[in-house]
Amino acid sequence: MIVFIGRVEASEQENWIRLFSSAIPDETILPFADLTEEQKQHCDIAIVANPDPQDLLALPNLKWIHSLWAGVERIMNELTFPSFSIVRLVDPELAQTMSEAVLSWTLYLHRDMPVYAKQQSKRTWLQQPMIRAQERRIGVLGLGALGKLSAKRLVDNGFPVAGWSRREKHIEGIHCFHGDEGLASLLKQSDILVCLLPLTPQTKGLLNHQTLSYLPTGASLINFARGPIIDDDALLKKLDEQLISHAVLDVFTQEPLAENHPYWVNDRVTVLPHISAPTHPISACEIVAKNISHYRLTGEMPVTVDPVQGY
Amino acid sequence: MIVFIGRVEASEQENWIRLFSSAIPDETILPFADLTEEQKQHCDIAIVANPDPQDLLALPNLKWIHSLWAGVERIMNELTFPSFSIVRLVDPELAQTMSEAVLSWTLYLHRDMPVYAKQQSKRTWLQQPMIRAQERRIGVLGLGALGKLSAKRLVDNGFPVAGWSRREKHIEGIHCFHGDEGLASLLKQSDILVCLLPLTPQTKGLLNHQTLSYLPTGASLINFARGPIIDDDALLKKLDEQLISHAVLDVFTQEPLAENHPYWVNDRVTVLPHISAPTHPISACEIVAKNISHYRLTGEMPVTVDPVQGY
Repeated sequence: MIVFIGRVEASEQENWIRLFSSAIPDETILPFADLTEEQKQHCDIAIVANPDPQDLLALPNLKWIHSLWAGVERIMNELTFPSFSIVRLVDPELAQTMSEAVLSWTLYLHRDMPVYAKQQSKRTWLQQPMIRAQERRIGVLGLGALGKLSAKRLVDNGFPVAGWSRREKHIEGIHCFHGDEGLASLLKQSDILVCLLPLTPQTKGLLNHQTLSYLPTGASLINFARGPIIDDDALLKKLDEQLISHAVLDVFTQEPLAENHPYWVNDRVTVLPHISAPTHPISACEIVAKNISHYRLTGEMPVTVDPVQGY
Repeated sequence: MIVFIGRVEASEQENWIRLFSSAIPDETILPFADLTEEQKQHCDIAIVANPDPQDLLALPNLKWIHSLWAGVERIMNELTFPSFSIVRLVDPELAQTMSEAVLSWTLYLHRDMPVYAKQQSKRTWLQQPMIRAQERRIGVLGLGALGKLSAKRLVDNGFPVAGWSRREKHIEGIHCFHGDEGLASLLKQSDILVCLLPLTPQTKGLLNHQTLSYLPTGASLINFARGPIIDDDALLKKLDEQLISHAVLDVFTQEPLAENHPYWVNDRVTVLPHISAPTHPISACEIVAKNISHYRLTGEMPVTVDPVQGY
């Protein structure tokens, strides 16, 4: 028996249950609120979207939960040593959408769109010096499914790309750095830095006063990962000192971004409402349904989140 | 003997002459102002950047002129039945830069950047519905060197692309339309329209009240070609009626754009100062030098502009 547990709008919950019920018609899929006490005993799988941890703990025979999102740091933080396994969404379409977002906002910075927008507001006709893609060095933090595809797409569009991950990786066409020393080396050669790291205790505050200082003067950055990876005060200071020329931020420590947050009105910051790579319902449903059907047939779970690494 | 004729800044003229003198050291290359009457008799080639037509007519033995720009409509308009041939710059690097601009501003529209900029100015946190690249139909007007490469690059990045040219063309992966009937068909299926046509008597005002009405409601357009191809009043009306949602304009009938022009302050218009594909001096110089050396060796001119077609 499968339960859907999400802190989402009622219409969204209905939509998900309808999609899953038609994708895996042999299963009974109910929202948590509708479960009887007896049904709670029989739930072995939960499909979750920002679930209340108490709901999960009320299911004694839960074997595993499937998140509809790629990021699971919130579940990991709220549950210590859960008795069930956690599966996050690894959606090739999500990686595709993210790589499109990375390319889009890299080109936004590369082609000076924020500068031209400011000029338009002042009716200024002025051509900025043109930098060729092959002379604009991009650094990608995080080389998982999203980072790898994004890096490749940037290479396909003419940019020299380097990447960094915690552990050593080798990817054709990408100069790969790793570990603490590698991080400084990568930052020092990144004209545009793209953050796609998972949020873990190790990555929280990774971009701080010290690490941001390694960037070349006038570098830009894009954060499409999680807000707390950046120390906001450090970033605001670097923007103010013009050491960093622009930041594109799609994720924040608190979302929605508080109305009085200085990011909203800083003309060196582009604020986006967490739209880089939204979960696509149909595509996500297909993947989750396939994982569940495979488990029913074989008893094999999909790859689960490592509780130590946190992703 | 070669003359450089340009209405450009003195420093720019010096830079060009220096570049050409080192690229074709066997030739004497002088600015028009420095020519003696006798030297004027000996000039058979002119390298030009927005030349004064009177200067060209003062050279009785001119065989051909090489423009440093891709667009030659100004020269064509100012000279009727010149006794010399006209060569325009066909620079693969220029096509590369243009295709990058087309991709950049297509993604700008595709990923709703103008909408998110407006939302930021109002501190509004709101996710726009996400449209997948495969569901966003792009139409490219003009399938010359620039249009063809741009269309291919859009296809490589996941968009369905159709194109239109005056005469029939076949390009792999691109649905090609042509002629008057083909134009209406293309416009009717273009969610984003990209204009890369040459300016000729036939293309002047091609995008007018009638043709713009063929676009789907809410379509956007990008003009990286020449200003007069668009009827500005017609475009402003369609924007006002919200039939066209946004226009990215890099070229204008009068450049720089007049300070009191309504485009500057229309929040559905992105004004760019003619920056989509600037001539790259080193790359342009290589191409012109090669064409001139080939002519000196063989007597063969590069492909020249057809005075009837105008490009």
